[in-house]
Amino acid sequence: MRLLKVDTLEEARNKLLKAVAGKDPGTENVGFAESLGRIVAEDIEAVENVPGFTKSTVDGYAVKAANTQGVSESVPVFLDVVDEIRMGEAPEKTIRDGQTSYVPTGGMLPEGADAVVMIEHTEKFDEKSIAVYDAVSDGRNVIREGEDIGRGSVFIKRGTRVRPQEVGVMASAGVSHVKVFRPWRISVISTGDELIGVNEELAAGKTRDINTHSLSASAAKYGFEVIGTSVLKDDRGLIKEAIKEAMAVSDVVLVSGGSSQGEKDYTADIMDELSDAGVFTHGIAIKPGKPTILAYDGASGTVLAGLPGHPAAAVMIFELLIGWLYRQLTDQREPRAITARVTENVAAAGGKATCLLLELRLGSDGTYEAEPILGKSGLMTTLTRADGYAVIDTNSEGLKQGETVSVVLF
Amino acid sequence: MRLLKVDTLEEARNKLLKAVAGKDPGTENVGFAESLGRIVAEDIEAVENVPGFTKSTVDGYAVKAANTQGVSESVPVFLDVVDEIRMGEAPEKTIRDGQTSYVPTGGMLPEGADAVVMIEHTEKFDEKSIAVYDAVSDGRNVIREGEDIGRGSVFIKRGTRVRPQEVGVMASAGVSHVKVFRPWRISVISTGDELIGVNEELAAGKTRDINTHSLSASAAKYGFEVIGTSVLKDDRGLIKEAIKEAMAVSDVVLVSGGSSQGEKDYTADIMDELSDAGVFTHGIAIKPGKPTILAYDGASGTVLAGLPGHPAAAVMIFELLIGWLYRQLTDQREPRAITARVTENVAAAGGKATCLLLELRLGSDGTYEAEPILGKSGLMTTLTRADGYAVIDTNSEGLKQGETVSVVLF
Repeated sequence: MRLLKVDTLEEARNKLLKAVAGKDPGTENVGFAESLGRIVAEDIEAVENVPGFTKSTVDGYAVKAANTQGVSESVPVFLDVVDEIRMGEAPEKTIRDGQTSYVPTGGMLPEGADAVVMIEHTEKFDEKSIAVYDAVSDGRNVIREGEDIGRGSVFIKRGTRVRPQEVGVMASAGVSHVKVFRPWRISVISTGDELIGVNEELAAGKTRDINTHSLSASAAKYGFEVIGTSVLKDDRGLIKEAIKEAMAVSDVVLVSGGSSQGEKDYTADIMDELSDAGVFTHGIAIKPGKPTILAYDGASGTVLAGLPGHPAAAVMIFELLIGWLYRQLTDQREPRAITARVTENVAAAGGKATCLLLELRLGSDGTYEAEPILGKSGLMTTLTRADGYAVIDTNSEGLKQGETVSVVLF
Repeated sequence: MRLLKVDTLEEARNKLLKAVAGKDPGTENVGFAESLGRIVAEDIEAVENVPGFTKSTVDGYAVKAANTQGVSESVPVFLDVVDEIRMGEAPEKTIRDGQTSYVPTGGMLPEGADAVVMIEHTEKFDEKSIAVYDAVSDGRNVIREGEDIGRGSVFIKRGTRVRPQEVGVMASAGVSHVKVFRPWRISVISTGDELIGVNEELAAGKTRDINTHSLSASAAKYGFEVIGTSVLKDDRGLIKEAIKEAMAVSDVVLVSGGSSQGEKDYTADIMDELSDAGVFTHGIAIKPGKPTILAYDGASGTVLAGLPGHPAAAVMIFELLIGWLYRQLTDQREPRAITARVTENVAAAGGKATCLLLELRLGSDGTYEAEPILGKSGLMTTLTRADGYAVIDTNSEGLKQGETVSVVLF
């Protein structure tokens, strides 16, 4: 495993993607209403037209558009009312020249009609006829059968994150179940002799464990299922056993702490021993997050990721690698970024990419300013102050005040 | 209730906010790890310093910075190693001039020391001393006690949506429980004689109910609890009974369909009868969404909202009014918007605001183009094609191609 060189973020991503090439991201069928927030795993094709019939979009009178040619406020046309169409029912009467039927919003157009005149543009003339004061063109105030979704067309694509409107459109097309990617199973292991729990008494030298909580929450944000978390003393045997057990049931095992160059840093060795492909990345040229380890075990289909012990860096590396990997394997689009002008010069990090944390402010002109958060990377509050981040390329010469950056929101 | 005039969106919002002024948005205590995605209901103040002691951010040697003054690669200083500090333990030895202790990343600084020299800039000289090749300033490579969060300071504000980093920072500060706003209880009633379910056989004139599903999903997006949905025939008695029952247990009752000017549109009358303050908005000058009804019943603390029957319009009005109202009452920030150049001219809607649906495309220069989705408002797929929307003001003269718009993402 002796890796002498750190990877760029791009190299690490490429290696990771290549390593997991054979991994099936896995799918499951869920009820369409339960699919909110999930990622659709295959194109959804319509088995019926939506709407299933040509319908009116207004309350009014269904007509042959040709019968209203030349009609105006001062020159009405008179039509015989042959039917009053009811919601949810099929019209019985066909419209012929000189005829019309009342149709409510959402009601089905009768045969022979091709447009609807709004009720506001008509007047009752006698018991059996109306005056029409508006010329309508073919298709006016109607939605044609299949105009929203045509039978056989793909109306939701693989890789789509289901929003309320996708739930609605599935309902409209009679799609009761949908194949979505199953949530990845994640195990989080936090190591360190100094770690205590959130409810324990704080003693000198002790630090509350953050990473099992923040990384579990990061995983939950992606819809992943956190199947286990553990906080372990910095003991080789303990850690190895925990990783091995987690691998049997997880898609991703996250281990934080123990990935820098200190004396007790055997995480990389353990991951190398436990994975058939071995460790392929040990160190990424990014700030913060350099001490990142990546390995993949094809036999169990498990990604092993050694994350920095610094909580803020661990969350960032999870976003940049694991979140990114999931989007890649499930054909999701990268998140939309906010364009903003940086409020001060930012120096380049000589040979390293920088994950720059930014706080957004909306200017009076409706555009955003982004203020760099320059605190030490060990401070968790740098992340809570940040609205998002921008990755500044390895080869960048830094940012000049007023320069535009793309801010990915947390 | 005779309301002769439609409101602008702003007027409707102001009336709604004024009407619900006495409504308690309600709070509950949850475990900090379960608070992900929830809205914090009161400022969170630190009861302890984070970190609880001054710690090293690197593996190295704790020193008095003054002892390294003038030191360089060629002019080292020699220091006696008096201790090896272990993770999670309090150092026993105080550092005096000429002394140092080894300290691992995250380890506690011994008394007397005020900086750490990275191990890479040191060399073992003999069993009991090291050579230091780097001059460090006071505070170098350390995080001071309370530097991340000072005891007594507010580190998470009321109105904050909890992200993974907020979960992490709560863990770091020993905050095991947090007061968050309770989810609003929502009932969704969809009315119409034409409505059938997602699994029913499609017959002529029938339309699948969309609104209970898309509005439930919209509510879920905000973390609301949907306590009931019903699809009702267009029958005054039935609808009144359903609204009344829902009011007893809901914060918001959404009724879609029956809010236009058609013959069976008695939703407004029912809402007026059932609410002590009566209907205060009947019609909003916005496209789509004009036939919107708003009422508030102070006795039960229930917002009554009659939404358009058009599914896309119903989702939009939910976003613009109910989502907005919740953010207002819980002190949340409005969502960040993407700035984009519109790809074509958009005509103004004469006297109405327009909720313009937009599809975003990332240009090669890293900025976004926004293509207006100009389909009929009855088409649900206009919403699924859209990445977001922009509200074009009532008094706007429309948009010129290339003009900048703020796109709120769905």
